[in-house]
Amino acid sequence: MSNDDFPSPAARNHRILILGGGFAGVHVAMHLERLLTPGERHEIDIVLISNENYMVFQPLLPEMVGATIAPQHGVIPIRRLLRKTRVYIREIQSIDLTAKTVELSPGFQPHTKTLGFDQLVVCLGSRLDFSKVQGMKEHAIPFKYLGDAMRLRYEAVRALEEADIETDPDEKQKLLTFVVAGGGFSGVECIAELHDFLAHAISAYRNLKKSELRCVLLQSAERILPEVDPVLAQYAHQILERRGIEIQVNVRLNAVSADAVVVTSKVSSDSKRIPTRTVVTTVPSAPDPLVSALPCERDRAGRIIVNEFLNVPNYAMLWAVGDCAAVPQPDGIMSPPTAQHAVRQANTCAANLLATHRKQKQSKFLFTGLGKLASLGRYSAVAEVMGIKMRGIPAWMAWKAIYLMKIPGWDRKVRVAIDWIIDVILPRDIAQLRVHESDSVHQLFFNKGETIFKEGDFGDQLLVIVKGEVEIIKDGKVLSSLKQGDIFGEFALISDHPRSAQANAKTDVHSVAISREAFQKLVAHLPGVRPTIDSIMTSRGYKPPEVKSLDKE
Amino acid sequence: MSNDDFPSPAARNHRILILGGGFAGVHVAMHLERLLTPGERHEIDIVLISNENYMVFQPLLPEMVGATIAPQHGVIPIRRLLRKTRVYIREIQSIDLTAKTVELSPGFQPHTKTLGFDQLVVCLGSRLDFSKVQGMKEHAIPFKYLGDAMRLRYEAVRALEEADIETDPDEKQKLLTFVVAGGGFSGVECIAELHDFLAHAISAYRNLKKSELRCVLLQSAERILPEVDPVLAQYAHQILERRGIEIQVNVRLNAVSADAVVVTSKVSSDSKRIPTRTVVTTVPSAPDPLVSALPCERDRAGRIIVNEFLNVPNYAMLWAVGDCAAVPQPDGIMSPPTAQHAVRQANTCAANLLATHRKQKQSKFLFTGLGKLASLGRYSAVAEVMGIKMRGIPAWMAWKAIYLMKIPGWDRKVRVAIDWIIDVILPRDIAQLRVHESDSVHQLFFNKGETIFKEGDFGDQLLVIVKGEVEIIKDGKVLSSLKQGDIFGEFALISDHPRSAQANAKTDVHSVAISREAFQKLVAHLPGVRPTIDSIMTSRGYKPPEVKSLDKE
Repeated sequence: MSNDDFPSPAARNHRILILGGGFAGVHVAMHLERLLTPGERHEIDIVLISNENYMVFQPLLPEMVGATIAPQHGVIPIRRLLRKTRVYIREIQSIDLTAKTVELSPGFQPHTKTLGFDQLVVCLGSRLDFSKVQGMKEHAIPFKYLGDAMRLRYEAVRALEEADIETDPDEKQKLLTFVVAGGGFSGVECIAELHDFLAHAISAYRNLKKSELRCVLLQSAERILPEVDPVLAQYAHQILERRGIEIQVNVRLNAVSADAVVVTSKVSSDSKRIPTRTVVTTVPSAPDPLVSALPCERDRAGRIIVNEFLNVPNYAMLWAVGDCAAVPQPDGIMSPPTAQHAVRQANTCAANLLATHRKQKQSKFLFTGLGKLASLGRYSAVAEVMGIKMRGIPAWMAWKAIYLMKIPGWDRKVRVAIDWIIDVILPRDIAQLRVHESDSVHQLFFNKGETIFKEGDFGDQLLVIVKGEVEIIKDGKVLSSLKQGDIFGEFALISDHPRSAQANAKTDVHSVAISREAFQKLVAHLPGVRPTIDSIMTSRGYKPPEVKSLDKE
Repeated sequence: MSNDDFPSPAARNHRILILGGGFAGVHVAMHLERLLTPGERHEIDIVLISNENYMVFQPLLPEMVGATIAPQHGVIPIRRLLRKTRVYIREIQSIDLTAKTVELSPGFQPHTKTLGFDQLVVCLGSRLDFSKVQGMKEHAIPFKYLGDAMRLRYEAVRALEEADIETDPDEKQKLLTFVVAGGGFSGVECIAELHDFLAHAISAYRNLKKSELRCVLLQSAERILPEVDPVLAQYAHQILERRGIEIQVNVRLNAVSADAVVVTSKVSSDSKRIPTRTVVTTVPSAPDPLVSALPCERDRAGRIIVNEFLNVPNYAMLWAVGDCAAVPQPDGIMSPPTAQHAVRQANTCAANLLATHRKQKQSKFLFTGLGKLASLGRYSAVAEVMGIKMRGIPAWMAWKAIYLMKIPGWDRKVRVAIDWIIDVILPRDIAQLRVHESDSVHQLFFNKGETIFKEGDFGDQLLVIVKGEVEIIKDGKVLSSLKQGDIFGEFALISDHPRSAQANAKTDVHSVAISREAFQKLVAHLPGVRPTIDSIMTSRGYKPPEVKSLDKE
């Protein structure tokens, strides 16, 4: 099939390639391993491609933020679950349905790798869509992967550390304000655990009081937890408010900057600014670019349309499972993006992959969901399980029991159970593990009217305006007005003096920031990047690509 | 004292400022807290400045690599230990002994912060010295901080993942070779735990065999563990060799690249290359730049010379404790850089800080060490405790018992003990937590003769030569020879095609690499960096700084 087919034994003449190492993908492979007859094991080659070597157990993500469980215990190493599958830890670059190949990104060596397939299962999940809100990509912490949970934890502790030594009361309040956008399952569980953690951790800080903490949940719909019964949602709302969490419903998130969020009421259309240093986003999702690039039909949300067999119409060798697929249930509605649905879809798909190979009859996807669970942090939850509504401690116990049961592998069950027990007796961990370093070249967004830097500030970065206008102000006078393509903030970096003037965003401003350290390397080693590259490329006989010259604007 | 003295109550007219949140600094503060009388608590302000909000329990660092304990359990949040000390989590920018102030780097807001002091305790430890070996800074993983241990763990799992799917046998062997430089305590414990972990984890990889694993320990002295009795060192040597670890003594590490290390025998002066993707360095240490900048006297290793009271001669308000200080023992030799010495020094120093304030007599540092312990991984160790030599299981048990006792705080003792118990029953964790992302602008070193990239490779970065020469080769012919200041590798980035030619290091090459992503941002938004900045600065009335033009070379 491909030139890189080691170590697939030549005898294995049928390859099932699974894209994605989430719940869906791993369960397709697990189920295939179970269903294969000994004869088929020599014939069929199961290959799974994943970005990470572990699968995240999503329901435990909020507990990783809250430090109820250790971050590594909420993930399961894929290789411990799959013993007969070949696992590639690589990013996927492209899918070619005609050639029946998938191209993988390079590893240590700068070679891409091509893998062929006979049947392809797409389990690429969904991504967070940052495009709807200005500044969200630059400044909000997403809440989807393990790295996100660890980063949120780090940022939350960092905010407490800074607040403890902050002398400016406004800045202190900003540091102690935490905003979660999205009032669905994920947002509610996130703010509940985050608030628990902060309320607990704050006792270690001498200059902070629990009453100074402000946790805000933003929800665009009329109520939180639209997924569950209104009575349960109302109960959850009350529990969270009683703990001191501020819930704002019917609001739209307009913009996020390093300093604040701007929200608009859907009722009154009034806008207001909530000053904060920590914003988490749990909404909304967008399809993976690889899914969008497939030639098959997709629904409005960008999900691959499959039939009740999980097969993609008109593509006999193509299957889709999980959040990236629009899977019809027997009741006519589409499967929601939850783990319980992904696992059942995976089982049906695995059976049908083999049925295709065996030329047998395919089975239909018949699952319609067992129930819904949302944890509200310590000792509370809401649940609807097989028609029974629960709340408070019984729901919380059901939550713990059900998810402990669902964690694949004994190893993880034991580790998570021990973490839960220890959490009851020992204080929460406030060690601030540094996991996220902002890149030396990154994007920043500023709201109209926001101060970008003040005179006397430390010169930490140089900025280039990508879109918008900036005013440089000194002694109350506008020294200059800068626009697209202009650079500012370089003097403090080159001279090592503090900022000599103030910079304000005259309009909304999108910019690229280059860190002090990277800038100094670039200046020292890369004189006149563009002209140099142009002339070198010209001298080597290549035509430099067209880049709009911003110098002349 | 300073303009930023919140929240020190005005009544507290004596401030003791401790620089550094390691063993030494935290123990000075802990002991001060214990010694203060209720009256003094209102008078004396204890302030500690640390880069991280936790203290690393160094002896457990190798176990964090080996996944015997969870990384966060080997660190202790400083605030849990210090209840009466103000803690600043900031980097220190400068120390001014004349003005009696210390300047801290900015936090969320770009302001530096100035803190005054009456007495200053320097506990800044030591840094790793990368300057002695070419390429070490760029390619070796240091082994000193928590982040280093987590990064080593990540890189080790990444190497296994890549080896499992590698089709080229040479590349596979390179991926399965792990080199630790330094045969002292730290290097020996690191390779023992790393080997344990790899030997255990490799069973999860279908295409890897334990026999393919190569772990190499490099030691420049005649034997490993020069700190302990030769008989115990010999025992440790045999234990490690029996497990399959290769020990090379009397060798000097000459160079490290992304591909290999070059070592020279001190006996025969022969050099050889060990192809490897993972190199750890535990040698040697250098003073912190802040320590080097102090006007006081230092020894040859750059440590601050103190008297037997831990006070710096001629600076009554200045004290130094731990690895950054040259502390004389009653037996005439200098205190070695171990935790047990740091803790005793801290106690003496704390007592003398108060004695100075109380105008009482100072006490002398009288400790000479209780013993030495080195863990050799599972069920083995060597130890010399109060004159008694131990090895094997008894030494291993002594190691566990002594360090469990020494971990400050019940919380951590319980967590570490549980980790140790779980480690006996459950498999080691191979989840590959991503903690280290290489920066978008970083340095690379290539050995003379090394291939920088091959024709057909994926264009992942652009390179600028800082020192050395590079040849561009196609079809066996040298197309061009590049030198200092020249750029190469840009075409594959701009055109999105694979590398069109091969690049070889003609000499040793130091370079700056700019990642694909950062380069694309820079090209799109930053046309002609240098001329643009020059002309903007000129137009604003500043003289651009002199930077040697590399264009004309």
